[in-house]
Amino acid sequence: MSADLQRFSGAKVLVTGGLGFIGSHLAKRLVELGADVTIVDSLIPEYGGNLFNVRDIADRVRINLSDIRDPWSIRQLVRGQDFLFNLAGQVSHVDSMEDPQTDLEINVKAQVDLLEACRAGNPDIRIVYAASRQQYGRPQFLPVTEDHPLVPVDVNGINLIAGESYHLLYHRVHGIRATSLRLTNTYGPHLLMKHGRQGFITVFIRRALEGQDLQVFGDGSQLRDFTYVDDCVEAFLAVAVHDEAYGRAFNVGGQEPVSLLEVARLCQELAGAGGKATTAPWPPERERIDIGSIYVSHERLTRLTGWEPKVSLREGLARTFDFYRAHGEHYWT
Amino acid sequence: MSADLQRFSGAKVLVTGGLGFIGSHLAKRLVELGADVTIVDSLIPEYGGNLFNVRDIADRVRINLSDIRDPWSIRQLVRGQDFLFNLAGQVSHVDSMEDPQTDLEINVKAQVDLLEACRAGNPDIRIVYAASRQQYGRPQFLPVTEDHPLVPVDVNGINLIAGESYHLLYHRVHGIRATSLRLTNTYGPHLLMKHGRQGFITVFIRRALEGQDLQVFGDGSQLRDFTYVDDCVEAFLAVAVHDEAYGRAFNVGGQEPVSLLEVARLCQELAGAGGKATTAPWPPERERIDIGSIYVSHERLTRLTGWEPKVSLREGLARTFDFYRAHGEHYWT
Repeated sequence: MSADLQRFSGAKVLVTGGLGFIGSHLAKRLVELGADVTIVDSLIPEYGGNLFNVRDIADRVRINLSDIRDPWSIRQLVRGQDFLFNLAGQVSHVDSMEDPQTDLEINVKAQVDLLEACRAGNPDIRIVYAASRQQYGRPQFLPVTEDHPLVPVDVNGINLIAGESYHLLYHRVHGIRATSLRLTNTYGPHLLMKHGRQGFITVFIRRALEGQDLQVFGDGSQLRDFTYVDDCVEAFLAVAVHDEAYGRAFNVGGQEPVSLLEVARLCQELAGAGGKATTAPWPPERERIDIGSIYVSHERLTRLTGWEPKVSLREGLARTFDFYRAHGEHYWT
Repeated sequence: MSADLQRFSGAKVLVTGGLGFIGSHLAKRLVELGADVTIVDSLIPEYGGNLFNVRDIADRVRINLSDIRDPWSIRQLVRGQDFLFNLAGQVSHVDSMEDPQTDLEINVKAQVDLLEACRAGNPDIRIVYAASRQQYGRPQFLPVTEDHPLVPVDVNGINLIAGESYHLLYHRVHGIRATSLRLTNTYGPHLLMKHGRQGFITVFIRRALEGQDLQVFGDGSQLRDFTYVDDCVEAFLAVAVHDEAYGRAFNVGGQEPVSLLEVARLCQELAGAGGKATTAPWPPERERIDIGSIYVSHERLTRLTGWEPKVSLREGLARTFDFYRAHGEHYWT
């Protein structure tokens, strides 16, 4: 264990969205580091929370079921915590377009209440907020750095910008020690699989395992970057213990960009279930919100903390397919 | 009347915030152009709505008292309108820091409902949204162009970015013809005067008229730009009838930047009530959210529409002082 991460030993840590994909891996890692972990999760059926995600640590964490839109429980829960990893959110871009108000309530209104709760009840807390490269919209240059203009192309992007801005503003004005991580496509075990509205990678994994073909729109050459969930967790820990991270936003990227068609082929190869990777013309309603190739630079994060993504896409996907082969039944419905 | 502005003759026009400062001038101008004007205003006591603002046109407009946070009345009111000038908003930066949730409800949540109402009930409407140069935060270069990064330094700035982004997104994705104007310090008759929380210029005008001294923080050399309200109104009209304005944001600026100390001196000169213009050290809580010199470029707007600010600061302020000398009693409390 690095000296920095020893700070989590005995620390009180709150993880919102802690039954979800990234939150559950983070909670497990924190338990291993000796932290006293409280998970907050709403277990909204359509979202990513799943009790199976904490099967290994259920007796070593406190699980508090509540919705971050409930300011009363949040006000109590932030008290006395040393760290807050703030991962609860509405993360489906598709859903955000169909129901912008729910996205706004969770990703902005609840965030303001949470920050106000910290300001009033625990101003010394250290917060790491889960934001998204979605905030950049259509890239004006590649790789996308943190200084790239924020011109979101969907409701979720608008609201994440506001949620992040509130965190950084509360640092600047009220001294709350908050950092934002802009995550790219993050993947691995514990991804929600019961529907495909939280990102194409879940659709790829599930369909490949089922032996179905994978369809990529256009010619499939659009580049994306991918972060394996264990690497993502290390980024959260690294910024949480770094005093120069407060008040700033950092991209969390992957090893190198890969085309969507390549990803689809890799999934089919690793799944070994007989499906093919194909291309198809753009449906007009999808093309309108497509952003072409996009991948981020994480140089700012590496320079500050030394963090680097360690798990290759092939290795990460292999682990992911192994997980769903063994435990898929807990995720399909 | 220019050919373009003839399009308002007989047009059905909704003005939210139409009893307020800019909205009331816009409503009057639209009535003069022959438009069929409906004003929506909540008359929230702390905000800028004032029935005296429409004294000249009260019998030629329909006044509908309702709050834009009430989605039911808004849903009805947008139906059948050709134009929507969307000026209702919480505009006090100070209030936004003390009560972020109210600012969020009015400046974001209600805007989403309004856009959804247009999408469902009047997708052909043309919308001009009143945004603010507040969205830029501390300037990274001067003059500030529309491509300047948006790094807001207060809650109001965060929420205006979201409100504007929703308008532009609804154009891009749903084809709603919406334009955003980022206003700088706008001044003139009808400014709210009952408190000083909506901008320093109101404080300057009122105190100067009362013969009190005007205090500028720091050395008073911070530059600002100012738009006289009649010029601002013409900018709203110009973009509303320009098809290439939809989906875009434009700065609305002034003739040339002026230092705060100069503005204070000009106010004292025009008021002629014996007060002085002085400087004072920064109070720490104000300095934290100060942004130094800021003024915008309106070149993008001028290039598209030919709009230029026509009224000098001296002339505009002289008209403003004349107005409050004659009608101040309707504004002081």
